[in-house]
Amino acid sequence: MNTHEHIVKSYDEEQRHLSGEIVRMCDMAIAQLEAALDVVERRDDRAAERIIANDEAIDALENSLSHDVMQLALRGPMARDLREILAALRIPSDIERIGDYAANVAKRSIALNLSPPMPHITGLRALGKLAVRQLREVIIAYRDNDAVLALKVRENDAELDEQYTALFRELLTYMMEDPRNITPCTHLLFMAKNLERIGDHATNIAENVWFLVHGEQPLPPRDKRDSTSSALPL
Amino acid sequence: MNTHEHIVKSYDEEQRHLSGEIVRMCDMAIAQLEAALDVVERRDDRAAERIIANDEAIDALENSLSHDVMQLALRGPMARDLREILAALRIPSDIERIGDYAANVAKRSIALNLSPPMPHITGLRALGKLAVRQLREVIIAYRDNDAVLALKVRENDAELDEQYTALFRELLTYMMEDPRNITPCTHLLFMAKNLERIGDHATNIAENVWFLVHGEQPLPPRDKRDSTSSALPL
Repeated sequence: MNTHEHIVKSYDEEQRHLSGEIVRMCDMAIAQLEAALDVVERRDDRAAERIIANDEAIDALENSLSHDVMQLALRGPMARDLREILAALRIPSDIERIGDYAANVAKRSIALNLSPPMPHITGLRALGKLAVRQLREVIIAYRDNDAVLALKVRENDAELDEQYTALFRELLTYMMEDPRNITPCTHLLFMAKNLERIGDHATNIAENVWFLVHGEQPLPPRDKRDSTSSALPL
Repeated sequence: MNTHEHIVKSYDEEQRHLSGEIVRMCDMAIAQLEAALDVVERRDDRAAERIIANDEAIDALENSLSHDVMQLALRGPMARDLREILAALRIPSDIERIGDYAANVAKRSIALNLSPPMPHITGLRALGKLAVRQLREVIIAYRDNDAVLALKVRENDAELDEQYTALFRELLTYMMEDPRNITPCTHLLFMAKNLERIGDHATNIAENVWFLVHGEQPLPPRDKRDSTSSALPL
């Protein structure tokens, strides 16, 4: 029986193992994002290349997770497991995209290093810190089944959107001041956009945590600031 | 028995129904994209608002599809169904993103209409046509289980990437020529990026069709052009 336990885990054990793997996957994405933000400041192309290469590990983990989740689904044909299975398929897919955006920040840092250093990366750093904070909180919410924390993450996305919009406008003015700023600022615009998109994926994860805890019960309406900023197509 | 048939469809019937729904969902996304591209040319804010509002229908269809697919998964605990279930969860998620990008093109067209008409939307139109063609082909590949057509779509993504890169560089030069072009060209840059991302999602769908037909058998290596252009972080 001891041997058997090592081969076939119980449904609940396997589920705990999978949710641990999802948390690990998110930690990998956070580490990639922090490394990418760091590399922008240090102007280190070699480190950027490593971050880009590391993204494959996150992609591979998503693939193996989605297979394991489906295997689990096939074992547990209970309607109540549906939510957990759906969340366990959706959350890794969001984390995978977060990893892509982190790798894209690293990729663009290499392009940015072809221009002289820009003073405007301070705004990007602040935005990056906010994105990292959102990810740290949302994965705790997932780990602890904490719907209140998940709602907080969702509300705080408005702050990230606001900072993104402010940075976007600031970058546009630098571009207008001096045409030599256009190429590097365009990269910074897309890097900022990546961070804003990471925030959206953190919000998706938060909504899945809510769905895990409360089922189909509708989410409370969002802060108004957000609907304003999402009306801006920046 | 006849009544029973109307209530509970067989596994295969339900699967055919779901794949029909996925094709319909993709048709909706293509219609949204074509309407969005059209609205850019016609500078019609009201029509753009309608496109943005219509995106909800695609999102709702993805939600209902993912539930139906999981219900089907719980009925058919056969390992060989795993691929079909995974593909039926992943493809709608790609189509949902395509719908978002189409809505974002419509959203930015409203912002673009605050500036005088730009002559540079011809490049955007060409890119949009290519994206629509990729989507039309990939959904036929899915409908017909045609792995050869899926591979062709995947190869042709390089063409979209090349046109995107060319348009990107062109827009940068317009921005450098006249600072008044910076704001509208920034919107065009992001619109072009949306179309390039739609191409990436068409490629994801193509890879899922390959996976449906050939299982874990690795995909043939991609055209070299693509790896070159993907190295450019534009």
